[in-house]
Formats: sequence, structure tokens, C-alpha cells
Amino acid sequence: MMNTPFLSAQGAAILVSRHGLSRCIRGMHDAIAHDFKRWEQFEKSARLATHSAEGVIEIMPISDGQTYGFKYVNGHPNNHRHELPTVMAFGVLASVQTGLPQFISELTLITALRTAATSVLAASHLNKPGARSMALIGNGAQSEFQAVAFHEALGIDRFYLYDTDLFATERLTHHLNEVGFHVTPCKSVAQAVARADVITTATAAKTRAHVVTRDMLRPGVHINAIGGDCPGKTELHPDVLGNARVFVEYEPQTRIEGDIQQMPSDFPVIQLWEVLTGFALGRTHADQITVFDSVGFALEDFSALRYMHELAEEKGELEYLSLIPHMSNPKDLYGLISKAECA
Amino acid sequence: MMNTPFLSAQGAAILVSRHGLSRCIRGMHDAIAHDFKRWEQFEKSARLATHSAEGVIEIMPISDGQTYGFKYVNGHPNNHRHELPTVMAFGVLASVQTGLPQFISELTLITALRTAATSVLAASHLNKPGARSMALIGNGAQSEFQAVAFHEALGIDRFYLYDTDLFATERLTHHLNEVGFHVTPCKSVAQAVARADVITTATAAKTRAHVVTRDMLRPGVHINAIGGDCPGKTELHPDVLGNARVFVEYEPQTRIEGDIQQMPSDFPVIQLWEVLTGFALGRTHADQITVFDSVGFALEDFSALRYMHELAEEKGELEYLSLIPHMSNPKDLYGLISKAECA
Repeated sequence: MMNTPFLSAQGAAILVSRHGLSRCIRGMHDAIAHDFKRWEQFEKSARLATHSAEGVIEIMPISDGQTYGFKYVNGHPNNHRHELPTVMAFGVLASVQTGLPQFISELTLITALRTAATSVLAASHLNKPGARSMALIGNGAQSEFQAVAFHEALGIDRFYLYDTDLFATERLTHHLNEVGFHVTPCKSVAQAVARADVITTATAAKTRAHVVTRDMLRPGVHINAIGGDCPGKTELHPDVLGNARVFVEYEPQTRIEGDIQQMPSDFPVIQLWEVLTGFALGRTHADQITVFDSVGFALEDFSALRYMHELAEEKGELEYLSLIPHMSNPKDLYGLISKAECA
Repeated sequence: MMNTPFLSAQGAAILVSRHGLSRCIRGMHDAIAHDFKRWEQFEKSARLATHSAEGVIEIMPISDGQTYGFKYVNGHPNNHRHELPTVMAFGVLASVQTGLPQFISELTLITALRTAATSVLAASHLNKPGARSMALIGNGAQSEFQAVAFHEALGIDRFYLYDTDLFATERLTHHLNEVGFHVTPCKSVAQAVARADVITTATAAKTRAHVVTRDMLRPGVHINAIGGDCPGKTELHPDVLGNARVFVEYEPQTRIEGDIQQMPSDFPVIQLWEVLTGFALGRTHADQITVFDSVGFALEDFSALRYMHELAEEKGELEYLSLIPHMSNPKDLYGLISKAECA
């Protein structure tokens, strides 16, 4: 049988732990930046979402003409009742030339790293110079990764935390204190964002919420909005968007899923790759409010999968699955059955 | 770590071999018939295809509101040059309620079984009574499964074979002789179909071909067209379709991918589920030419995955993958990394 390289959830956790979280996020950042800069080479499509009362299951495919990749990912806000994560994911890379799967990987953990890497990639072009503090609104599974990534890449060292779930804020405070960050738990969103240079919103409720409103914002703040990421789920008041310079990953997808779903279809946005390639400007003055309306795009998973594949290969953390049968005569599928007993 | 049940390529071959090919196809037939009869319960969509010069990679998702399933499958006609099968596949079932993957399986082998099961399901409603012989046009990986299925379910015991690749016909002849079928290799399509009650076309070229033309056909023949299954790939001359009663799996998909892509968009077709539920008639008279313009629909893979999951569980052929991390606190993804070293 042909063997498909597999990075398990356990393998990925060990790999990230040994190689170092910051180093992995940095490596992923570089891979994502590299791929965003060759944007035109990718065959892109909005993800394929299956919605239910409880949540959503999505398939996110992409191809650069050499390698095809897709991610399976769910979003179920009430999964904690089943002792399951809100978001679970896995991904696959395959050869465009033959269709052969080349790598299967867990992506529950890796998605958090690639989201943080993408947030930092955007913020490094959109932040006002000298930003030092970040408000973290929503202190769930993503939040530590955001904090670590922004600290490492941009020198953010002061964090204001807010969540409707006090236990979540407590956990995050504990983890960020452990790594030596300066942390202030807050009683409201307004309090958390009042002194922040960057605001990261990563809330999970599947509703049209306005967690952040115009009156809360200081001039020059950058909003890294990662929680409003499917139809009917938003975090920012339309007035925030209307008064900001807004950046997105892949416009057709974000129009459906992002916070800009609240805005008219001709509301102006700039795609991140345009900023990275110098095709468009990022922040144009210090007092401007910038918003990265991030929903998570297939290209980021593609880059993350390729990075993890190389890293796992190098560090020897791959397993091998008999996913595709090996046939001496590839037209003889039937021969597999008669040979099975002798294998 | 949480463990996801996995049926490997090797495991599937052993399972089918031990349980018996005919019995597996029969079980799958019943599962597919059951699911086609509750057609309205499924959330259906055309598959998501990524085309390249060499072939196509597709994702085929479906959900019945309880279980979500998808198949990854490629189609690369020149894969034999790389000693790979033309079609390779795997599939996943997941809970709609939580998004948790519940089963991962090889589908390279299983797809051949479910295709044969679906062909038989259609033919058993569309064949003229007393059909005994079948022409097999295209003697590749699918062909033995078609022959075994039609023999078992419908008593077909005489096979006329034709392929442009003589070695393929030789292999098929050998296999069918082995199981005691009456086999006649033929020198042309016309010769193969001349005395056949059923014609199965399963050719692989990615071109607009007219393998079967109107003049070749006897009154009352049933055509099981399984090879014309993507845009630009056809097997039947439009005159064949224009003079036949044509049945399809899922109309929106077949209009794009099936042989009817050659016909006007209002060309009348009947969906298979309508026949199975008595909503529409199958064959209406003995001399009628019937065509099952089969492209392969996600529902069939869904049924096949559920059948194989149950069978593998019962027969103890499952492995278990650490695909989704287990977290004591599902909001604490970060905790995975610190705990990884102690695991």
C-alpha cells in the first residue's frame, strides 16, 4: 500500500512545543507572506459552507497549479457543552499533476497559529508606529496565540483582556503572566480598548453583534477583527467600518462572511496582498483607524500546511497512513481484493 | 488525544475480500436505495471541482442534517504513466451537531463498489425484463465491479468486452473467466453492443467523445453511462440521448458534468430518486432506449461510507487516528503545547 504522510494532533503539539511556538508562528508568517505575494498564481474560491442550527462545517480548497490544498473546519459555538473545541480542523495537500494526496495534518492547533501569523502580517503593515498595547476581546482558544505572536513580531507587551466568560479571562491571564507579559483584566469592552493601540476581537457567538462601537475608539487604533467570520456573525458596529480604512483577505469571501457583510456591496476595501506587493497603501496617516476584517482564507492554511509538512519531515514527526492503495497495475483495482488475503 | 476511526486502503481490501465483494455491493446497494428514497432530507450541492491540464480534483459534500459527509476524489486519465490509478479517493463522515469527524476511509476501492451498486440500482428499474447480456465499453478499473454487480443482482451472465487498450480487455477477460462468466472480447464498440441488452460505458479519456452512436443500438437496450462525468468529457452521441428516456442522479450536477451537457438546458431528464419513490415512471415500454447518465453523486459516497463504517466496526477492521486534539478545557488550545512534552 502507498503511504501518505500524516501529522497527528499529538505530533503537531509535540512539534510546536519542541520547535517553539514563536518560531513556528514566525515560520508560518513568512510562508503566508510569501504566498500572499504570489496571489495571482492561486486558483481561489469562497469556501463551501454547510450551515445548521448548531454551527457550520466548511471545506476551504485552493490550488497554486502545482499543489492543491483544502481544509475541513467546523464552527460550533456551543461545543463546550460536549467538551469539544468550538473549532476543529484538518487539512490535506495533494499533487495537481496526479491528484495523489501528499500530506494529511491536524489543523485544530495549527489554525490558531496561522490565524495569529496572518493577524501579525496584516498588523505589521497597518499598525501605527510605536504600538505597544493590545486589547483582547474574547479570551478563548485563539487568544494566547494572538498575544504571543503580537509580542514577538511587534513588541506588544501590554494586554487588556475582556470576555463575558470570567474563567476564560482567568485562564488567559494566568498563561500570559506565566510568559511574563503585562496583563490587565477589564470589566467591559470599553475599558479594555480605552488605552489599546491594537484591538483584537475574537468572540465566538454566532450572532450579529456590535462588540466594538465607534465611541470606544482612540484615533490611530488598528482593529484586528478575527471573530466575525460567517454570515450573521459580526463584531464591529457599521460606524466603526464606515470611519475606517478596511483591509480583507479575499474580497468575494469577506463580503459574505466578514464584518463588511453589514455594509453596501460597493463599500471600499483593500485586499491584503495589494498592500504586501505595494499595489495599494496600508495606513495612510497616524490618526486613521484601520480594520483587518479577517475571516480566514484557504491560502493561509495552504501555507501553514506546507510549512508544517517541511518541519515535520525535518524533525521526524510524521506517521504514514495506508490511504491510497498501491497497485502494480493501476487499472487492476479488482486485483486488490484477491491479493488482500495474502498481504 | 481523541481518536478518529480510520479504515485504511489495506483494511478496506481485506474487509471486502473477507465479507465478499457481491455481499458488499449488495449491502451498499441497499444503503444507497434507502438514502435515495429520503432524497428531500439531504442538503445537496454540485461538487467543487478544480481543473488542470492533467485532470481534476473534486470535493463532494452532502449532509442529511445529522451526518455530514464529503469525498475527495481526483480524475487523471494519464496517471498510468506515473503508475497511479486514474481515480483515487478518500472520504469523511462528521457529526452535524458538533462538527467532530467520526470516520475517515479510503474510497479508491469503495468508489468502484458504490458506482457498481448505483448502476445496478438504476438498471433494476430501467432494464427491459429478461435482460441477460451486457456490453462493457472501457475495461478499466471499474469494469470487474460492474460485471460482478450486474451478474449478482440482475442475472446478467454474458459479457461483450471492448477497450482501445487490448491489455485491459485481456485482464478483464481473465478475471471474468475466473469467476465463470461467459465472456466475448470484441474488435469494436459496434460489435460489442450488437447483441447486448445492457451497455455499460466506462471510458476514461477527458475528451468530448461519441463512443456510442444511434445506429449501433437495438430497441429496448439500457445504457449505463458512467464514464462521461465531467465538463468536456462525454461518451454518447447526442442522437442517442435525443432518442432515449434519460435518467440522472442530481440534475444540476449532471447538466454540467454528464453526457447531457451536450443537450439544451431544457432537455427532459428524470431523477433516479423520483423513480425509486414512484414519483416518476422508469421504462415505459419494452422497445424504449433508456439511459442512466451517471456522474457519481455525493449521496452515494455518503451511503457507502456509512455502510463501510458499520461493517468495519462489526468486523474489527478500524484503526484509530489522533486527528482532533483532546482538551480537558476545550477553550485551552494553548495548554496542548505545554502538555505535549509530558504526554
